[in-house]
Amino acid sequence: MKPYIKENEWSIIEHGFDPEKHEISESLFSIGNGHMGQRANFEETYTGSSLQGSYMAGVYYPDKTRVGWWKNGYPEYFAKVLNSTNWIGLNIVIDGEELDLNNAVVSDFTRELNMKEGYLTRSFQAELNNGRKINVTATRFVSIVQKEVGAIKYEVTPLNFSGTLGVTSYLDGDIKNTDANYDEKFWDPVNTTLSDNRASITVKTKKLDFVFCSTMETQIVKNGQVLDLKGAGEEKVKYAGLTYEAPLTENETTVIYKYAVNITNRDHDTQQLEAVAENELDKAVLKGFDKLKEEQAEAWHQKWLDSDIVIKGDVAAQQGIRFNIFQLNQTYTGEDARLNIGPKGFTGEKYGGSTYWDTEAYCLPFYLSTADEQIPKNLLIYRHNHLEKAKENARKLGFEKGALYPMVTMNGEESHNEWEITFEEIHRNGAIAYAIYNYVTYTGDKSYLGQYGIEVLAEIARFWEERVNFVKSKDVYMILGVTGPNEYENNVNNNWYTNRIASWTLEYTLEVLDYLKDSDRNLYDQWVNKLNLTEDEIVKWADIINKMYYPEDKEEGIFLQQDGFLDKELMAVSDLADKHLPLNQNWSWDRILRSCFIKQADVLQGLYFLNHEFDMETKKRNFDFYEPMTVHESSLSPCVHSILACELGYKEKAYEMYLRTARLDLDNYNNDTEDGCHITSMAGTWMSVVQGFGGMKFKNDSLILNPFIPEQWQSFSFTIRYRGARLMITVNQESIKVANKSNKTVNLVILGDELTLDGHNNLEVSH
Amino acid sequence: MKPYIKENEWSIIEHGFDPEKHEISESLFSIGNGHMGQRANFEETYTGSSLQGSYMAGVYYPDKTRVGWWKNGYPEYFAKVLNSTNWIGLNIVIDGEELDLNNAVVSDFTRELNMKEGYLTRSFQAELNNGRKINVTATRFVSIVQKEVGAIKYEVTPLNFSGTLGVTSYLDGDIKNTDANYDEKFWDPVNTTLSDNRASITVKTKKLDFVFCSTMETQIVKNGQVLDLKGAGEEKVKYAGLTYEAPLTENETTVIYKYAVNITNRDHDTQQLEAVAENELDKAVLKGFDKLKEEQAEAWHQKWLDSDIVIKGDVAAQQGIRFNIFQLNQTYTGEDARLNIGPKGFTGEKYGGSTYWDTEAYCLPFYLSTADEQIPKNLLIYRHNHLEKAKENARKLGFEKGALYPMVTMNGEESHNEWEITFEEIHRNGAIAYAIYNYVTYTGDKSYLGQYGIEVLAEIARFWEERVNFVKSKDVYMILGVTGPNEYENNVNNNWYTNRIASWTLEYTLEVLDYLKDSDRNLYDQWVNKLNLTEDEIVKWADIINKMYYPEDKEEGIFLQQDGFLDKELMAVSDLADKHLPLNQNWSWDRILRSCFIKQADVLQGLYFLNHEFDMETKKRNFDFYEPMTVHESSLSPCVHSILACELGYKEKAYEMYLRTARLDLDNYNNDTEDGCHITSMAGTWMSVVQGFGGMKFKNDSLILNPFIPEQWQSFSFTIRYRGARLMITVNQESIKVANKSNKTVNLVILGDELTLDGHNNLEVSH
Repeated sequence: MKPYIKENEWSIIEHGFDPEKHEISESLFSIGNGHMGQRANFEETYTGSSLQGSYMAGVYYPDKTRVGWWKNGYPEYFAKVLNSTNWIGLNIVIDGEELDLNNAVVSDFTRELNMKEGYLTRSFQAELNNGRKINVTATRFVSIVQKEVGAIKYEVTPLNFSGTLGVTSYLDGDIKNTDANYDEKFWDPVNTTLSDNRASITVKTKKLDFVFCSTMETQIVKNGQVLDLKGAGEEKVKYAGLTYEAPLTENETTVIYKYAVNITNRDHDTQQLEAVAENELDKAVLKGFDKLKEEQAEAWHQKWLDSDIVIKGDVAAQQGIRFNIFQLNQTYTGEDARLNIGPKGFTGEKYGGSTYWDTEAYCLPFYLSTADEQIPKNLLIYRHNHLEKAKENARKLGFEKGALYPMVTMNGEESHNEWEITFEEIHRNGAIAYAIYNYVTYTGDKSYLGQYGIEVLAEIARFWEERVNFVKSKDVYMILGVTGPNEYENNVNNNWYTNRIASWTLEYTLEVLDYLKDSDRNLYDQWVNKLNLTEDEIVKWADIINKMYYPEDKEEGIFLQQDGFLDKELMAVSDLADKHLPLNQNWSWDRILRSCFIKQADVLQGLYFLNHEFDMETKKRNFDFYEPMTVHESSLSPCVHSILACELGYKEKAYEMYLRTARLDLDNYNNDTEDGCHITSMAGTWMSVVQGFGGMKFKNDSLILNPFIPEQWQSFSFTIRYRGARLMITVNQESIKVANKSNKTVNLVILGDELTLDGHNNLEVSH
Repeated sequence: MKPYIKENEWSIIEHGFDPEKHEISESLFSIGNGHMGQRANFEETYTGSSLQGSYMAGVYYPDKTRVGWWKNGYPEYFAKVLNSTNWIGLNIVIDGEELDLNNAVVSDFTRELNMKEGYLTRSFQAELNNGRKINVTATRFVSIVQKEVGAIKYEVTPLNFSGTLGVTSYLDGDIKNTDANYDEKFWDPVNTTLSDNRASITVKTKKLDFVFCSTMETQIVKNGQVLDLKGAGEEKVKYAGLTYEAPLTENETTVIYKYAVNITNRDHDTQQLEAVAENELDKAVLKGFDKLKEEQAEAWHQKWLDSDIVIKGDVAAQQGIRFNIFQLNQTYTGEDARLNIGPKGFTGEKYGGSTYWDTEAYCLPFYLSTADEQIPKNLLIYRHNHLEKAKENARKLGFEKGALYPMVTMNGEESHNEWEITFEEIHRNGAIAYAIYNYVTYTGDKSYLGQYGIEVLAEIARFWEERVNFVKSKDVYMILGVTGPNEYENNVNNNWYTNRIASWTLEYTLEVLDYLKDSDRNLYDQWVNKLNLTEDEIVKWADIINKMYYPEDKEEGIFLQQDGFLDKELMAVSDLADKHLPLNQNWSWDRILRSCFIKQADVLQGLYFLNHEFDMETKKRNFDFYEPMTVHESSLSPCVHSILACELGYKEKAYEMYLRTARLDLDNYNNDTEDGCHITSMAGTWMSVVQGFGGMKFKNDSLILNPFIPEQWQSFSFTIRYRGARLMITVNQESIKVANKSNKTVNLVILGDELTLDGHNNLEVSH
């Protein structure tokens, strides 16, 4: 399908209504505020193809596992984000005929997602079968100020008649997840209330007792006056609707305002839900739509100050990067450590909306650099909160000690059910540890280690201790039977990345223990005591570090992705005829597995994470060896390649890799955006700009910048927070400028030169 | 559960009715005749737990695949044997109360499967809630003479009253497979007919157009007279019933005879089904129950002459082996080359009732030795008939030429959907080739090679040619990414067995080509032409044979199950605490995979198949290395170990391995007999006796016998067909006797001595 989104620096715009593209647009134009999200479904009835989707952060359901052949150890349930009460519904009836864009002549259709101010607007002209022509403009947003509130302004202007407008404003909780394994509904009714202009419904999940209350008020305004109408109530199971009739006058606009509040017992006492919702609704209605929208614009303005990237000379690139940043900020705002970032955010149901290692590997850097320290810290605390479940998970798989974090989770329990991933993709445990290192190194906040970090590190270290396998005859430790980050290999022995990140975890854990011992002996002793940490364990960890086996080819000077990799037929992706790509749609799984082709960075993921450990030549040899065999059939792959290519001076490759994800959803590159947007890979695109083109690293309390600018761009700039300072870095074809927008002094290393930049000062370096 | 079957040489006997064991008994007491099979369900209503099962050979359904996560290449459907019209149904009403053993006081319950004559009988006394006491004896069989006919004799004797017997004799086609993936019914109604004493129903599969017609006649006999009763007809969708009333006189027996015919459009013209069924029914009714039963006994007598094994001094062993032989003969009679042997035969639904490599690896030897040559030949022709589908299967997996036989199939198409098995367990292709070798070597019928064999061999050879991987740096061919016979390893490189059987296939194919070229140049040229066989291919095959890589440990003198096997932590099963076993119920899949433990013979399977290639020391070293690590969690494993242990003189181990499967179902060893009996592994038990204890091999037109007798037995004897002769071999603690029951002379090698035994002569050799 040809890309159809109009290029614009601050908005996502679609002109013309094409039902074929509607589900893609429903994903792209999604709105969210970290608490809830809403696909860009129409408010009015639409009988064409649509994925109706409204999601509440942290509300999930344990859907009974579906497999072909059961393997011992599989979880009984897959925890799924829940498609919840539809709060946007407005049935519009024009002189007796229901408005339905699937059943009307539509013209002048425009959809716009205003990213600067955080709202969705849609306008169109429709000619109904009864000959009535109307103009409609619908605007809505979910507030990032008052997080439980959504507001809609729906304007109807009759163009060739005066007549009657019928409006049914409703809340519908009889919702089913499209991805339900057994076609079951997950919601039970609890209560419905109806008054003249307000209604509420309360529903409850069939398991786990999530209670969800929605309440709404509807107003109809004509000539600037709120009409004094009483809605006719209709109550069905899990449904409440209020129907109004209002006059329509030719060429005059009648406006429907709908305010809704969506709250759950995750945040409020179950018994108080209706009262709290009522109260929130009062507040929203009192402010009114325009005031709420102003607040929204102001709050988004603040977010953009922290996180914007400006690209000059390339509108498509500008739009792409802003879309990614906007969606990340819509998905996760970080105040609530119980929440995390699903691969599709609130834009669809695929992958269950749960937490993957994507968070630690790709998303954390974005929040580290663009948000208050507490926010990335909450991502770490999320995993600390799940430590007991991770220990249970390890026990369930037969380990006597340690913690294995799940592949996919909503509450800490494993949800995934593919043995080659669930049981074998254990490198994820390394990423959890690495995130602690990453956070502490970036923020300098070592207090986290003694507060929470060491507990997680020690339990992960214990897992690796038990999971490795000592081979006496070779005097080495090995890790057998794993799946590395490259999921196009399963059940391999000695995946270099897994072996390295496992051993690195042990190294870092010992380093942190030493740090605690030196810095706060008392705290250290408390942890040793609490963890029952023994000298034997510490000795064993050191022994594993010393004797870990790493597959290498010394002649080629490369790390081997796993044992036996060189026995494969080695060829470049460029040698494959087009008909073979993408492999995952054209090749059977065994063929993919025995081929040399790589889904996503694996050895290179290690060179990215542990970048400081390897010299440039080593990185270059490995990049040159693996990159040509990589098909990037994970959206998480190109960013790592782009960053490494930048470091290695492979400018064209870096830009090519950047382009592969920069507009992944906007251009529907993978032909799957209708399922939702690739939220976690959007963070990878941000990394490509900041860590790749910006060349941003950090070491020893200094921020390092080694930027280069693609020749296609005039300039790019990004804003980051670093150690209390707020810096804006601008790179153009001639120079690098750093503006310190705070009063904190920062240490910089730009193109190798150590510099100090005081508060509210600027500097410029030529390159 | 404690074994409850009474020991008896010729019968399977259960005393006392225990509803908890009913489903196990329903499997054990199944009857079949190669055309159809029937679980030992009760004729009368039974409201307790039961798996109602009636299966017709070759009638199957493509049930939509169910998976958790789809892999490219998976089949869309799993072909399943169909649970079909229930033809045994007889509702019995005693003075107004329905007989239901779940709702009556049952005593003197006995079930007996008479293996000598091939029928099932059941008798019991029941006291109903209305106080009526009756004796019932029910006898039934499916005829191996008139294959579409089933007959029931149901005797009712009132013990404490005279009254009324109500009988509803019915055919019920509204049947569902318990293992349906989506809880669907697979049968549609076609037609129902009813007359006074006959009824028929015709049903049709929702896909594939199998049409199945059942017809029945019911007679009620009192005092030796057929009562002149007219049944009251009841017709429902896919159901026809006739209800009779007859007087019951205290202590007099009233007998219900039910004759049923079950035919399908696999064997008859669809339009003629009802007429043919009517005609068959006429024949059966004319003969009457007693005559049909006599014919049955005579036919089974002939089968036993060909295939019986007699064990003296051990009734349990005698019963076990006869049960296995009986079930094999009930499952597959070999006249129809479209049929094959499902893992559960007609005794249950598990594994879809389809064809696995079990047939070639385990069942073929039984039929080679106990049946007319055409019968094992039909098993080979079955695969020849599927050659085009096997080529399609290879294409589907991306191969440009050659044939890959499916892992599981009903019609030649792949049915299985687990990538690690479906796509990777390619060694099955070797077993298909080996079966040709096995057949030709045993029978001496080399004509098969030029008739069908070479076509299958060449296409399999082509598959291996494309599937191997040349590793330039090592100048060897490898086979990467396979699952060997030991399914407790997945996606390994260079599974020794797979590499060896692949190379062996190429060797044998070249040998057969040479033979054809030498013996019939014209035929050879025809095949070269038809197969487009090129000189390049033949050169390539020879090159692969020369340069095939075999993982070995030269120091230990063992073949390695696969690359890296010695990196595992090696330990014996005996070192595991009991709580770990069986591994497949106690360990997660990854733990099983990375352990050294072996599900079933793998390297040893190669030493069994290609026994003549290896010296005794090599076999011993490998057996000593692998056997202690083998958990035998496949019922197909112990037989190979038992046979090799016999050869190596490990008498105790041989007997121990023999016992593990000899009474697998009778003693419900694996706790799963309620799902059906392990039909294909029963052939392995036969092999354990004949090839193991009997030490039977064949080479260069000689039959080789190296018997030993377990000390627990007085003697054992088995009958085989060999090259037109019929031999009975009896082994006791002192000697080996061979009786030639034919007029053909045979060459024997007994305990190393070459002997010739003329027709109708005997010989005896001491040992």
